[in-house]
Amino acid sequence: MPQLDNDIITLAHGSGGKLTNRLLDEAIFKVLDNPMLETRGDGALFEGEGKMAFSTDSFVVSPIFFPGGNIGELAVNGTVNDIAMCGAIPKYLSLALIIEEGMPTKDLWEILLSIRDACQKAGVLIVTGDTKVVERGKGDQIFINTTGLGNVLPESKLDVFSIQEGDCILINGSIADHGMAILSKREGLQFESDIVSDTQALNDLTTDLIKKFSSSIKLFRDPTRGGVATVLNEIALQTRLGIALDSNNLPVNKTVASACELFGLDPLYVANEGKFICIVKKEVADEMIAFMSNHPKGKAAAKIGEFCTDHPGKVIAKSLFGGNRVIVMPVAEQLPRIC
Amino acid sequence: MPQLDNDIITLAHGSGGKLTNRLLDEAIFKVLDNPMLETRGDGALFEGEGKMAFSTDSFVVSPIFFPGGNIGELAVNGTVNDIAMCGAIPKYLSLALIIEEGMPTKDLWEILLSIRDACQKAGVLIVTGDTKVVERGKGDQIFINTTGLGNVLPESKLDVFSIQEGDCILINGSIADHGMAILSKREGLQFESDIVSDTQALNDLTTDLIKKFSSSIKLFRDPTRGGVATVLNEIALQTRLGIALDSNNLPVNKTVASACELFGLDPLYVANEGKFICIVKKEVADEMIAFMSNHPKGKAAAKIGEFCTDHPGKVIAKSLFGGNRVIVMPVAEQLPRIC
Repeated sequence: MPQLDNDIITLAHGSGGKLTNRLLDEAIFKVLDNPMLETRGDGALFEGEGKMAFSTDSFVVSPIFFPGGNIGELAVNGTVNDIAMCGAIPKYLSLALIIEEGMPTKDLWEILLSIRDACQKAGVLIVTGDTKVVERGKGDQIFINTTGLGNVLPESKLDVFSIQEGDCILINGSIADHGMAILSKREGLQFESDIVSDTQALNDLTTDLIKKFSSSIKLFRDPTRGGVATVLNEIALQTRLGIALDSNNLPVNKTVASACELFGLDPLYVANEGKFICIVKKEVADEMIAFMSNHPKGKAAAKIGEFCTDHPGKVIAKSLFGGNRVIVMPVAEQLPRIC
Repeated sequence: MPQLDNDIITLAHGSGGKLTNRLLDEAIFKVLDNPMLETRGDGALFEGEGKMAFSTDSFVVSPIFFPGGNIGELAVNGTVNDIAMCGAIPKYLSLALIIEEGMPTKDLWEILLSIRDACQKAGVLIVTGDTKVVERGKGDQIFINTTGLGNVLPESKLDVFSIQEGDCILINGSIADHGMAILSKREGLQFESDIVSDTQALNDLTTDLIKKFSSSIKLFRDPTRGGVATVLNEIALQTRLGIALDSNNLPVNKTVASACELFGLDPLYVANEGKFICIVKKEVADEMIAFMSNHPKGKAAAKIGEFCTDHPGKVIAKSLFGGNRVIVMPVAEQLPRIC
């Protein structure tokens, strides 16, 4: 724990004065220490090289601590994954905190440690940042923005407009874990076996896939807010192709499925934070599932659908009993502040 | 004005579903339209080249509309300036909004238009973004994170550790305008002539200076939160040199000076959003002030001090009457949420 003057964060910590410097020196810089952060200038300098990916996300998840993680690692993994979805190797992150006055310093410390660990796991550095403090009641403990930079793999040929009839839709594992972990925590529910968020960095797996399968991979997309249903609807609209979803093949953990039933939620619409949709040429689908299954982050990989010309712009699920059901774009997600 | 379903922003606009897409299509993408934003992937792709600068800032200014600007243009100019302070030409920005449920759509629209205009003036593109909505009472209308990327000018030799005894400290114009504009608005005060924020992008002037004076320029730094006093204290600590500040030469607008007096504030500690400190070799100081004075953003440029070895790590001001006064690093800024 850092030696700060208070056990809570005060407005003065966001003032730009001595207390801000102390918060930076004793907590943030100490934890996230790296040579690029050390210069403490207005920004970080790096060598640009080839095609690069750039992505931003603000995290407002509530509660900030949840089964399987907290807002800190979520903020790192979320942006790392957005960069990975671009076919790139994530490299640098910026970190901008908006803290509500009164936040316990120990909570901030725990979040910073998670940020550090998540960065180490994903192989990224936080190279520049910002800290603001707002009055009590004008924020909610902490909001975190991370913005990422990465190098696009030369082998990457990702392009949503290269998707054709017959291309297969794969996923690297079970859906709805993150959303249901947040909801269980919010509602104070205990399940037989705990539901934990799937928050994890996917860049190791996506990099391996691109290196091995290169131009056979047409798209990566992570089904976060709005879940798999939303992402597939967006892709169907962009490509003007139909998607035939194979509901029977959707990996859903049992406890998560029960929790979804209890709340009347369809797992297809619930957020994920460590899963990605992968659209590939039919010929490589089986080999790719086998490859993913051998990776710790792809063990429950499955083929969940394919593209067709039958119902352009629409996602239709074949159900267990052979019936068809249109998976519409949700008007609003069931769960606000899921990420 | 965009055709949204509501005249206020609702939680559903941050859900990732249909209403989020509508907000993006009808407002954000429509206003900020550019080819890089159009792909709507998880991130933006660009060609990396040479040394680049990367900087982030979250803006929580209150009120969001103030004399001379609003939070939108402030967010663009602030990050553009951080990149400019690195000796770089700002190029791309990310834009992440955290909106409080209930924000009037027309206010969001006005802010988006200001963002667009500020981007055009500064010559930058918003290429990727994120939108979140939090419940009423968990935010404060809107918080904006911008993160910027730019190309470091090959002529730039900025390096805080190259600063030596005798180097001069210049500023491009009057201080304390932004902070006093915010404070006057908060307190509902009217002054004889209005005090307006100095929010503006500085990259055109800094680029011209670097191209002309190259290695004679040792540091740029923008005195935002904590004002000139804080920035100079940080530099004195980093360089282990003393700073002799010439109080008589500090440009302060008359109305701003009166307002400071009224509130018992020292303009040296009040935030600026369109000013920068420039540390240069003595030999070029006069020429550089003449050069800046010919630029619309440097009309009131002045030499406000120089580096010495007398009192390492300390900033000491010579007053009007010849006395000396230590300008300490503030413990906390007088005004929270100034940017």
